[in-house]
Amino acid sequence: MRGAYSTFYQRASNAFRDHPSLSKLVVICTISGGGLVAYSDVRPFGSVYADAAQPTIKKKKVVVLGTGWASTSFLKNLKDLSFDVQVVSPCNYFAFTPLLPSVTCGTVEARSVVEPIRNIVKKKNFNVQFKEAECFKIDTNNQKVHCKSIQNTNIGGKEEFTVDYDYLIIAMGARANTFNTPGVVEHAHFLKEVEDAQRIRRSIIDCFERASLPSVSDEERKKILHFVVVGGGPTGVEFAAELHDFLHEDLIYLYPDLEQYISITLLEAGDHILNMFDKRITAFAEEKFQRDGIKVKTGSMVVKVSDKSITLKERASGETKVLPFGMVVWSTGIGTRPVIMDFMKQIGQGNRRVMATDEWLRVDGVTNVYALGDCATINQRRVIEDIADIFGKADKNKSGKLNVEDFNEVINDIIERYPQVELHLKSKKLKNFVQLFQSDLGDAAKQATHLDIEKFKAALSEVDSKMKSLPPTAQVAAQQGEYLAQCFNRMKECDENPEGPIRFRDSGRHRFKPFRYKHLGQFAPLGGEQTAAQLPGDWVSIGHSTQWLWYSVYASKLVSWRTRCLVIGDWGRRFIFGRDSSRI
Amino acid sequence: MRGAYSTFYQRASNAFRDHPSLSKLVVICTISGGGLVAYSDVRPFGSVYADAAQPTIKKKKVVVLGTGWASTSFLKNLKDLSFDVQVVSPCNYFAFTPLLPSVTCGTVEARSVVEPIRNIVKKKNFNVQFKEAECFKIDTNNQKVHCKSIQNTNIGGKEEFTVDYDYLIIAMGARANTFNTPGVVEHAHFLKEVEDAQRIRRSIIDCFERASLPSVSDEERKKILHFVVVGGGPTGVEFAAELHDFLHEDLIYLYPDLEQYISITLLEAGDHILNMFDKRITAFAEEKFQRDGIKVKTGSMVVKVSDKSITLKERASGETKVLPFGMVVWSTGIGTRPVIMDFMKQIGQGNRRVMATDEWLRVDGVTNVYALGDCATINQRRVIEDIADIFGKADKNKSGKLNVEDFNEVINDIIERYPQVELHLKSKKLKNFVQLFQSDLGDAAKQATHLDIEKFKAALSEVDSKMKSLPPTAQVAAQQGEYLAQCFNRMKECDENPEGPIRFRDSGRHRFKPFRYKHLGQFAPLGGEQTAAQLPGDWVSIGHSTQWLWYSVYASKLVSWRTRCLVIGDWGRRFIFGRDSSRI
Repeated sequence: MRGAYSTFYQRASNAFRDHPSLSKLVVICTISGGGLVAYSDVRPFGSVYADAAQPTIKKKKVVVLGTGWASTSFLKNLKDLSFDVQVVSPCNYFAFTPLLPSVTCGTVEARSVVEPIRNIVKKKNFNVQFKEAECFKIDTNNQKVHCKSIQNTNIGGKEEFTVDYDYLIIAMGARANTFNTPGVVEHAHFLKEVEDAQRIRRSIIDCFERASLPSVSDEERKKILHFVVVGGGPTGVEFAAELHDFLHEDLIYLYPDLEQYISITLLEAGDHILNMFDKRITAFAEEKFQRDGIKVKTGSMVVKVSDKSITLKERASGETKVLPFGMVVWSTGIGTRPVIMDFMKQIGQGNRRVMATDEWLRVDGVTNVYALGDCATINQRRVIEDIADIFGKADKNKSGKLNVEDFNEVINDIIERYPQVELHLKSKKLKNFVQLFQSDLGDAAKQATHLDIEKFKAALSEVDSKMKSLPPTAQVAAQQGEYLAQCFNRMKECDENPEGPIRFRDSGRHRFKPFRYKHLGQFAPLGGEQTAAQLPGDWVSIGHSTQWLWYSVYASKLVSWRTRCLVIGDWGRRFIFGRDSSRI
Repeated sequence: MRGAYSTFYQRASNAFRDHPSLSKLVVICTISGGGLVAYSDVRPFGSVYADAAQPTIKKKKVVVLGTGWASTSFLKNLKDLSFDVQVVSPCNYFAFTPLLPSVTCGTVEARSVVEPIRNIVKKKNFNVQFKEAECFKIDTNNQKVHCKSIQNTNIGGKEEFTVDYDYLIIAMGARANTFNTPGVVEHAHFLKEVEDAQRIRRSIIDCFERASLPSVSDEERKKILHFVVVGGGPTGVEFAAELHDFLHEDLIYLYPDLEQYISITLLEAGDHILNMFDKRITAFAEEKFQRDGIKVKTGSMVVKVSDKSITLKERASGETKVLPFGMVVWSTGIGTRPVIMDFMKQIGQGNRRVMATDEWLRVDGVTNVYALGDCATINQRRVIEDIADIFGKADKNKSGKLNVEDFNEVINDIIERYPQVELHLKSKKLKNFVQLFQSDLGDAAKQATHLDIEKFKAALSEVDSKMKSLPPTAQVAAQQGEYLAQCFNRMKECDENPEGPIRFRDSGRHRFKPFRYKHLGQFAPLGGEQTAAQLPGDWVSIGHSTQWLWYSVYASKLVSWRTRCLVIGDWGRRFIFGRDSSRI
C-alpha cells in the first residue's frame, strides 16, 4: 500500500534505502518542457517509528516552543539520539519570513515559503512529536508547559493538555510592537505571519476594486488608493518597494483609469529610513523612493489610527496632521508576547521589557530553560562587574600585579567570555590584548611589564561600551538554534570535558563556549530589481547585481528543495506573466 | 514608465506590436533549470483606452452578471466593436471549477486555477469594464441592474450603484442545494467556490492536528478522522477519491500514528454512485472505492447535520442512524440563488424551480435579457404544442395532406427548431425524417405518399419524450457563452438576413439558429491516477491511460497560458514532492 501510493520522492527514497552510501541523490525530471531539480536526502523510512517501538532507556524530554527560525534551526541540527523531542506551536509549518514582503504582492506565493514542520523533522532518526497548540503557561516548578489547541472543540472551548520537560526551549518569537498607539491593532495590517501577508494582498486588491466602483467620488478614490507604511526599517522599506512594483508593473495595466489616484507614503519616526544601514544605502534608498514617487515622511510619530485615517505628530513642531488612507501596514519593530510577559513576572524578570538569557541562551533565574530568537535577548555580562575576579584568576601568585605571562594564560578565556572585548579590539584596530593595555596606558607604560588592578580596570573601562544587543533577525535566530543544537549534541562529551572559558567568579570551566553571533550581512531590497546589501566588513553593494546576489542567497537559504523549486518557479512566473491580482 | 516597469510578457508583446502578422509568438525561457512555455496572443496595447477617448457613436450597453464559465466564454468570444460591456460579479476572477476537487487537497493550488477577469478582457479591442459587486435586483422596466459592493465601506454599509443595460446577460451560476436539510449550511462544507476548496483543505489539516493532541481519546480520534462526503455525483466522487489519495499518499507519512483511525464515507441517496454515467463506470468506481476502503453507503437520505454528527434515514427501512464525523462535504447538486428567485417572481416565473429561457437563451417573459449557465434552464418547446402550425406551414397548398415534397421543404427547419427530433432519430437509428414516418406508421403506410395531420401527430407523438434538460456542467455553460457571443457578433448581419429556422407559429424566420449542445464527454477521476471517461457515442474508457487523457484535456482547456503553466507545474510538484500539509 505504502509503495503503491507513495510519491515519486518517496519512491526514489525507498529504492535507495538499501544503499546508505548513496546518501545524496539528484533526480532530474523534465515535465512538460520544464525541469525541476529534486535533491533527495535519502534516509531509511519508518525508522522513526521502529525506534519508538523498541524498549529504550529513559530519554531526556526536550520541549521546543515555536516553529520559527530558531526552533527549526535547532531541530535541523539536533543529532543526539538520547533526546525525546516535543514541538509545540500554533503553526504547523516553518515560514521563510524574509520573503513575506514578496508574498504581500504575489511575487512569491504564500505556500512556496512554508514547509510543514513534520516534513522537516520526519527525516530525523529519533522521535520528534509535533503538537499544533499554543503554550499559555510555563510551570518551571513542575517542569511542565500548559498548552491549548488553537481549534475549538466540538463541545466549545479548546483542548488543553500539559507536556513535561527536562529541557525547555522557548522560541516563540515576538509580536508586532504597536507602542500602545490607539487603533493600530484594529485598523492596521502587520507583517509578521504568513496570514498577515495574505491579508495584505487581498486588501490591496480590495482597495482597487472599491476604487473602481462608479459610485465612488474621485476624492474618495484618492483616499482609497493611498497606501501608508509605518516604519522605515528593512521590512517596511521592502514592503513599500514591493508594493510600488506591484502597482506600477501589474495593477496599472489592469486598472488603467486608476493610475492617477495611486500614492504610497512611508512614515518613519527617525530622521532617515534604514537607519541601521550604512549612510550610502540610506541615501540611495531615499533617492530611489523619491524618483519612484514613494513619499518618505520622516520625523513624525503616529499618535492614532482610525478606520480611514492616521494621525501624525511632527516630532519637531508638535503639529498634528491627519492622513486618510485605504490601507495601512504597521512595521515598527517587535514586542514581547503576553505569555512571555507572564513567564517573566513568574521568574523575577517582571521589570524587564524583553526576557533575558545569559551568553549560553539559558533564561536567567531558572534551570534547564533556554530562550532563543526574537523572544529573548542575551544579557551580556559586563567586564567591569567581574574585573576583580578576572584579575584574581590571572594573578596566580597573588602578587597584586600581572606580568605578561600571567596575562597570556587568561587572554583567550577573557576574549571568549566577553565578546565585547573582541569588538573593542577590532574597533581600535588592535591586534591583541597586550596592545590594548599599551595603547591605553600611554607611551610610558609601554615598557611596563607589570599591571596593577587599577591600571587593569582603566584599560578595560571602555570595553563594555561596545556591548550591543543582537538585532531581531532570522540570521541571529538561526545561528542561536544551531548553536544550541550543537550544545545538546555534545552535552555528555562536554559534561566530562568542559570546552568553555574559565569561570572567573567560580572554579573550573564553563561546559560550552558561549554563543557568538557571526554577522553575514543584510539585504534591503528597494524594488525595480535593485537591492542594497551591507556585507561584513562594512562593504556596501547596491544595484541590479545585488538583486541577483539576493536571489541566490535567498534561494540557497530556503529550508527545503521543495520550497526552493517553488520560489524559483514563482520568480520565473512573475517574470513571464506578472503578479496575479485575483482576490483569493 | 510603462516600458520600464512592464513584465517580460508585456515587453515581448510590445516588441511585436508593429508586426500584427506575427500574431502568435512562442517564447521559451529556461529559468534555473526549468522551462516554461509562454504563448503570447499579441495585440496592440493601449488601444482599449484610445478607443474610449474617441468621440464614438452611441454603443449598445451589454451588462454581464457573473464571471463563471458562461460569462467568461461569452466575453472571450465577443468580437463586435459596437458594444460597450460592463461585467458585474462578486469574484474578480474566473475559476477553472473542474479542478476544485484537486484544490481541496493541494494537488493543484487555488491560485493556479484562477485568472483575473480583467486579464481576460484587457486584450479585447473594445471597452469592457468590470465592477466587483453583487447584483441584488434586476429592474427590467427601466433596464437597470442594482448592484452592491461586496466590501464594507469605511462609514459602514456597502457602496450601491445601478448599471443601465440594453442587453442583460445573467450568468450568475447557482448555489449549493441543501434540500433545506437542517444544519447543512452551518456545519457542512460546500464545493462550489475557490474559497470552499481552500476551507476544506485547511479543515482536513485541522482534523489531523486535532487528532494528534495528547488529550484526545482514541474514540474521539476516530470520529475526528472520519470524513463524510454527501452526494455520489461526479464532484462528490472525485473529492472522495482525491481525499483518499491525499490521506494515503501524503498525510499518513506525516501522521503515521493516525493511519489506523482514518475513514472516508460517501453517502448517496440513490442506488448507485455516478448514476449519470454508464453502468460499467459506476461498477468500476464502486469496486475501486471498496478496494481503497472508501465506504460507499447508498439508499440513505441525510435528514440532519449537527456540529459533530450527521443523521441518516434509510430509504428502504426508514431507520435512522447517526454518524459522527470530523468534516463533512456536501455536494448534492445545485439550487437557485435568492436574487434569481426574486427576479423570477417579478417576471411571472414564480412557480418554477429554475429560471426558464427559450432555445435562444432569452429569458421567458422579458425582452433583451439572456440567461445562461447553471442559473437557468432551456424550456424546450414541445413539438406536439406546435403540431398544427408545423403542419399548416408544410401544407403549402392547404390540401390537408402532406406529400414528400412539401415535407422536404420544412424538414431541416423542424430538426433545427426542435432538437428532440434529432435525438429521437438517433435513438431509433433512423437516417432521416421520412424514415421516421415510415417506421412509425407500419409497413402499409410505407408506400403512402401523403400524410394527414392525425398520422403526422402519431409519428411525432414520441419525439417529445426525448427532451431532457442539459446538465449543469462547465461544458454546457461554456458552449452557451460562445453561442451567445456568436449571436451578438452577427446581430446586425442576422437582423437583415435571418439564419434561423422558420417561425412555425408566426411569419418569417428566426434571427438566429437556436442553441444546440454538443456533448464532448465527461470525466470521473477515481484517484490513484485512474480516471473513467464517458465519451460521445457512449464510448467508455477507464484506467491510467484515461488519467493521462484527463491531464491533457484539462491542461488544454485552461483559460490562459499562465494557468496552464501553473497547473502543469503543480502536477509536477505533486509528483515529485507530494502535497503540502501546511495549515495556511
